Amino acid sequence: MVKKLDARNEDARNTAKHLRRPGGFLDREVRDVARSIVEDVQRRGDEALREYTERFDGVDLEEIRVPAGEIAAAKSSLPDDVREAFEVSISNVRRFSAREMPKGFELRRNGTILGQRLRSIRRAGIYVPGGHGAYPSSLVMSAVPAGVAGVDEISVCAPPGRDGKVSRWVLGVAGLLGLEEVYAVGGAQAVAAMAHGTESVAPVNKIFGPGNDFVTAAKLEVFGVVGIDAPQGPSDVVVIADASAFPERVAYDLMAQAEHLSGASAILLTPNEKLIEDVEPLVSGEPAELVSLVRVRDMAHAAEVSNAYAPEHAHVISEDHEAVLNDLREVGMVAVGDFSPVALSDYAAGPSHVLPTDGTAAWASPRSVHDFLVRTNYMNFDPGALEELAPHVERLARLEGFENHAKSVGIRRRGGN
Amino acid sequence: MVKKLDARNEDARNTAKHLRRPGGFLDREVRDVARSIVEDVQRRGDEALREYTERFDGVDLEEIRVPAGEIAAAKSSLPDDVREAFEVSISNVRRFSAREMPKGFELRRNGTILGQRLRSIRRAGIYVPGGHGAYPSSLVMSAVPAGVAGVDEISVCAPPGRDGKVSRWVLGVAGLLGLEEVYAVGGAQAVAAMAHGTESVAPVNKIFGPGNDFVTAAKLEVFGVVGIDAPQGPSDVVVIADASAFPERVAYDLMAQAEHLSGASAILLTPNEKLIEDVEPLVSGEPAELVSLVRVRDMAHAAEVSNAYAPEHAHVISEDHEAVLNDLREVGMVAVGDFSPVALSDYAAGPSHVLPTDGTAAWASPRSVHDFLVRTNYMNFDPGALEELAPHVERLARLEGFENHAKSVGIRRRGGN
Repeated sequence: MVKKLDARNEDARNTAKHLRRPGGFLDREVRDVARSIVEDVQRRGDEALREYTERFDGVDLEEIRVPAGEIAAAKSSLPDDVREAFEVSISNVRRFSAREMPKGFELRRNGTILGQRLRSIRRAGIYVPGGHGAYPSSLVMSAVPAGVAGVDEISVCAPPGRDGKVSRWVLGVAGLLGLEEVYAVGGAQAVAAMAHGTESVAPVNKIFGPGNDFVTAAKLEVFGVVGIDAPQGPSDVVVIADASAFPERVAYDLMAQAEHLSGASAILLTPNEKLIEDVEPLVSGEPAELVSLVRVRDMAHAAEVSNAYAPEHAHVISEDHEAVLNDLREVGMVAVGDFSPVALSDYAAGPSHVLPTDGTAAWASPRSVHDFLVRTNYMNFDPGALEELAPHVERLARLEGFENHAKSVGIRRRGGN
Repeated sequence: MVKKLDARNEDARNTAKHLRRPGGFLDREVRDVARSIVEDVQRRGDEALREYTERFDGVDLEEIRVPAGEIAAAKSSLPDDVREAFEVSISNVRRFSAREMPKGFELRRNGTILGQRLRSIRRAGIYVPGGHGAYPSSLVMSAVPAGVAGVDEISVCAPPGRDGKVSRWVLGVAGLLGLEEVYAVGGAQAVAAMAHGTESVAPVNKIFGPGNDFVTAAKLEVFGVVGIDAPQGPSDVVVIADASAFPERVAYDLMAQAEHLSGASAILLTPNEKLIEDVEPLVSGEPAELVSLVRVRDMAHAAEVSNAYAPEHAHVISEDHEAVLNDLREVGMVAVGDFSPVALSDYAAGPSHVLPTDGTAAWASPRSVHDFLVRTNYMNFDPGALEELAPHVERLARLEGFENHAKSVGIRRRGGN
């Protein structure tokens, strides 16, 4: 059953609260299970990996690391149209990622040089989720920005299917991207292996999602030992539409998001009662349970509710979509206009489909080259510049009780200490 | 006692392992204590805050939020020279932060618009550590980048001293920066309050350190509910010096870092045995316990060991410091040349002193405006551009089993579904 709300007289934050379906990775039991798996893999290595893979994936793994020949075979067996589709996707994501690349800088003034340099992380671990199916697109959306950022080594973990093998599509994409390090391991145990290393799995510097609740909880567990990206939970979309929208198209936009199932949310915000009436009967089946149709006062109010909800995706279908776009703030990806269904960016438009979920758009960003880069600052003072800044630094250091800090400056001043 | 190592014939990674003093925030007991405090504050709000403040700070708090009058009084009572020193610091940090500000972009091609916009987070919570003393400089180093990034609301938590008041220096800086929301709460309970909110403390979107192990563990605990920055542990420095260095200056550089105590590390890497001999007797007192003097083969080897250790700060004192700087990779802040003691950037040079510790420079960056900004991507396709990309997207969506994704695209193509 579709959920219907009249939010016209309600505070936007309250409406957002009613619509929110929180991610399960914060659940205490999920966290505890993930923690015990992480600790066990840290202690017992490959032996634990094999046991969890048997328990959760029903598979007795032959080899934890996928042999190079299997990746090559998967690549060469890609049907031409599928290969072409992946190549278009990779090329578009690469182009967008390249445009994102930031630059270092250097400021010079009065004998002082202050600078910032950028470098890629050495080893990135990318988790590719399994579950209902295989998601090769997910590998594209993380590995391409990693490559553009210049990461030295990219390692991939993906759960094995019933046949004990990683999906041929995921391996095919790995082949297209030139990735050689793929492990047939999923779940919290994969995250544990990438963080702590095992006999077969080399540890990485930073681990990237998305994955299910246990994967995300395990990432939170190992954060600090290694870096992680922000947690990713179930997918969501807010469609913001006025009378110009076609009901059947809006229905598919909602159903597309809802077919992710597992807690996904698909929300229509519209001031147009007729649109709600027309969309409702078109939304059917299991996904309908995850759909909410919400009447708002006007498009500005829709943007306000959307910002309070902080969706992963917003799709704006309006006669004045620029105005709505300008009002939107907390959101990962905005699809603008009727000819820009969210599915385009899910697969091939260019911006990554790894996006902040669960309202984390309030503080988290889409996957990008930035996730794979680290900054280093530097400074270089000449004697005159040191002399100018020194009295202030000595004063503040002594005020905080750090005498040696003050002396490390004083001893370098003209005339010594 | 100073520790001496001859690492000339040792693998750089092994040397780094011997030198590492891991941060206590990953300790299981610390994590459990932080978790129980977070859960208690989430449940009982102000009542719990008051109890923990009495237990840990020995103070029966009158008001949790510092009254505006107290901030104003602290500001106006700053001695002229201290005020001037803070103003110089603020101005230099502001200038560096302004240079860091990234820009959005828009790519247009063949009927497709792809763009990225930047916005600041709405509410940032900044923790200012107490402990041995008060660290007003820490507030400068986070609040100034937040302000440059355009954060709407900045809230500050700092532990009260024995008199039940937040340090006059911290409040004075808050006054200089125009900050109005300061709470006299420290420790894990402060992090819990900023994440979940209490009757007196309004919740924030993202929490920023540094703090002690319990503060850091609490940040890891609430990550996902809110954003956090990377964990920060004890301070460290690697001084990379050749025969051109003055032993007494190097000794102060090491002692300056070591006077942070609580697990800090100060390491000299040098190929010059004489420098080690000359520095050793100059390093004395309690901080000496935290100092290591390490003989390396040459300056390139020093950089290799430094990269494996991934220090918070590196200070390069060499006849060819550009060469060393170019070899350095995993490091938060590099002080280049003898006239650039690290203390300059600790207080006033411009780059923030909030830096990656505990080897996290392998994946984490110095505090910057980036920490306070969030990206939103957007796309806008015209009918022709949709038509061009559609077949690839429909193919990949069906390959992954997402029929409605494919249909949300197909229904918009010429000739309909």
